[in-house]
Amino acid sequence: MDITRIEAAATRLQGHARRTPLLSSPFLDEIAGRRLLVKAECLQHTGSFKFRGAWSALSALDPDVRAKGVIAFSSGNHAQGIAAAAKGFGVPAVIIMPADAPAAKVAGTKGLGAEVVPYDREKEDRDALGAKLAAERGLTLIKPFDEPEVIAGQGSCGLEIAEQAAEEGVTEADVLVCCGGGGLTSGIALALEAKAPGLRVRPAEPEGFDDVKRSLAAGTIQRNPALGGNICDAIVTPQPGNITFPIMHRLCGPGLAVTEEEALKAMQLAARHLKIIAEPGGAVALAAVLFRKDEIAGDAVICTVSGGNVDPAILARALALEV
Amino acid sequence: MDITRIEAAATRLQGHARRTPLLSSPFLDEIAGRRLLVKAECLQHTGSFKFRGAWSALSALDPDVRAKGVIAFSSGNHAQGIAAAAKGFGVPAVIIMPADAPAAKVAGTKGLGAEVVPYDREKEDRDALGAKLAAERGLTLIKPFDEPEVIAGQGSCGLEIAEQAAEEGVTEADVLVCCGGGGLTSGIALALEAKAPGLRVRPAEPEGFDDVKRSLAAGTIQRNPALGGNICDAIVTPQPGNITFPIMHRLCGPGLAVTEEEALKAMQLAARHLKIIAEPGGAVALAAVLFRKDEIAGDAVICTVSGGNVDPAILARALALEV
Repeated sequence: MDITRIEAAATRLQGHARRTPLLSSPFLDEIAGRRLLVKAECLQHTGSFKFRGAWSALSALDPDVRAKGVIAFSSGNHAQGIAAAAKGFGVPAVIIMPADAPAAKVAGTKGLGAEVVPYDREKEDRDALGAKLAAERGLTLIKPFDEPEVIAGQGSCGLEIAEQAAEEGVTEADVLVCCGGGGLTSGIALALEAKAPGLRVRPAEPEGFDDVKRSLAAGTIQRNPALGGNICDAIVTPQPGNITFPIMHRLCGPGLAVTEEEALKAMQLAARHLKIIAEPGGAVALAAVLFRKDEIAGDAVICTVSGGNVDPAILARALALEV
Repeated sequence: MDITRIEAAATRLQGHARRTPLLSSPFLDEIAGRRLLVKAECLQHTGSFKFRGAWSALSALDPDVRAKGVIAFSSGNHAQGIAAAAKGFGVPAVIIMPADAPAAKVAGTKGLGAEVVPYDREKEDRDALGAKLAAERGLTLIKPFDEPEVIAGQGSCGLEIAEQAAEEGVTEADVLVCCGGGGLTSGIALALEAKAPGLRVRPAEPEGFDDVKRSLAAGTIQRNPALGGNICDAIVTPQPGNITFPIMHRLCGPGLAVTEEEALKAMQLAARHLKIIAEPGGAVALAAVLFRKDEIAGDAVICTVSGGNVDPAILARALALEV
């Protein structure tokens, strides 16, 4: 994995993925205690950064292979990314999705023309199920994060951050990235290493599901104790990837972890001051910026809002909080 | 008023106003029955397009005049635009604001450093009040819409629509614009006349406050029967402007009007499918696209989401509706 692979992915994404804006608000700057720039990936096609990696992976396939279709397992955002990319290429997509995935994500995936196969997050092995279906139907499995072309696609977000931050005059800052398996985090870290070495990536996670934070601290891959039961469903993964972890270990600063309530409050503040919808898992980096500011140094900070696929009831709950 | 004035304003706005994205969603295309492109001006600085006109007006003032400060009357979005522009130039701003303006807008205006002077929307004449304060303090009054440099600034949004629609391959379409006094509507109409003549502007308003729709139909300026009591506060104005109306009459297609409930439903759909926050008055054009589709022709349609400064409780109400 290196910058040439990310740049190649970015070229394939041109005209297909959106160049999302880098937003800001003086009201959030005040809460953060420093200048804050927010990369609004919730405005990406399908409502999350996952479309980048999906399009990158599908566009890298041999056309004959791609034509047979693709399969993916995902709590929802990777699913929608794959479904939309497959639709764009006119090929079938099968998505293995946890039975407890948010209704908005299931509906979004089906609405994009994919076949959804539900599984039990606690009892079934999604990898085995995916491999079996792929073999039976001749589908290509597109992993959600531990796949070089997916990481390269997510890295295109990092190329944009490097350019947009430079336009804003920001060349030295921590870049907090909402982190599940580490595809976006490692992709952005690789892009910034090459294009903006003064910007340092730090993963943000939910408390109790901070496998990447603990893995970085330990220097070896650590697992989460549970695989569900957190509102930040999009970034609850068993452990960092075998490809993503070494990249993160080499390039990232210490991880940060926030509570569910902090993620919800960040959702409200993103709505009020940036006019964007964040989902809980897409709001953890913003939450860390706003509520863990003592763990951050420097006059400026950058964060991702990685996705916005949230059920309206959870958004309403976030809006009702005292902030 | 012509295109050179708009282009001059766009030059002054460069590096200050955001180039907002033109968003889309296959789910909204399906509801609209045609391809839909949404100009997300809620992502503009201060949460509405008004920052464009404000910056344009302040940047056009003689520096000695500007230094004494500016004054504006506004239900909130023009207020915040003026406050932010004045802050950017380091000059004082006084805002005359209806006493019943949404709390989010009052707080936003004060938070940007402006002095807020409340007035009674039904009983007081805001023009007279503004003129008196301006004379007393040597402030320059910046009108919310019937002012050439304000219209020119709003027109910069139209220049972007022309470019972004062409990038998407859309050169023939109705462009529905949320319309109060007509500053944004006339500015966009002038820009499109010069840059994208196949795109035709049509104003969108709340039912019962459709003074522009009725004025266009009558060929002369018509007034609204009331000046308050609609959730779309941002675009409830007494009547179209003396400068804006002739422009709209020359260039715009028929107006459209939507109910409050349709505006709220459009807010929900914007949140779910575009991940943006629209305020009721900023959602009327989208509502017309989605719920009055029989009044629109063509394979593609464009609309503005002009602002997103909504109190969280009203957004929560929109999210709770059956759509």
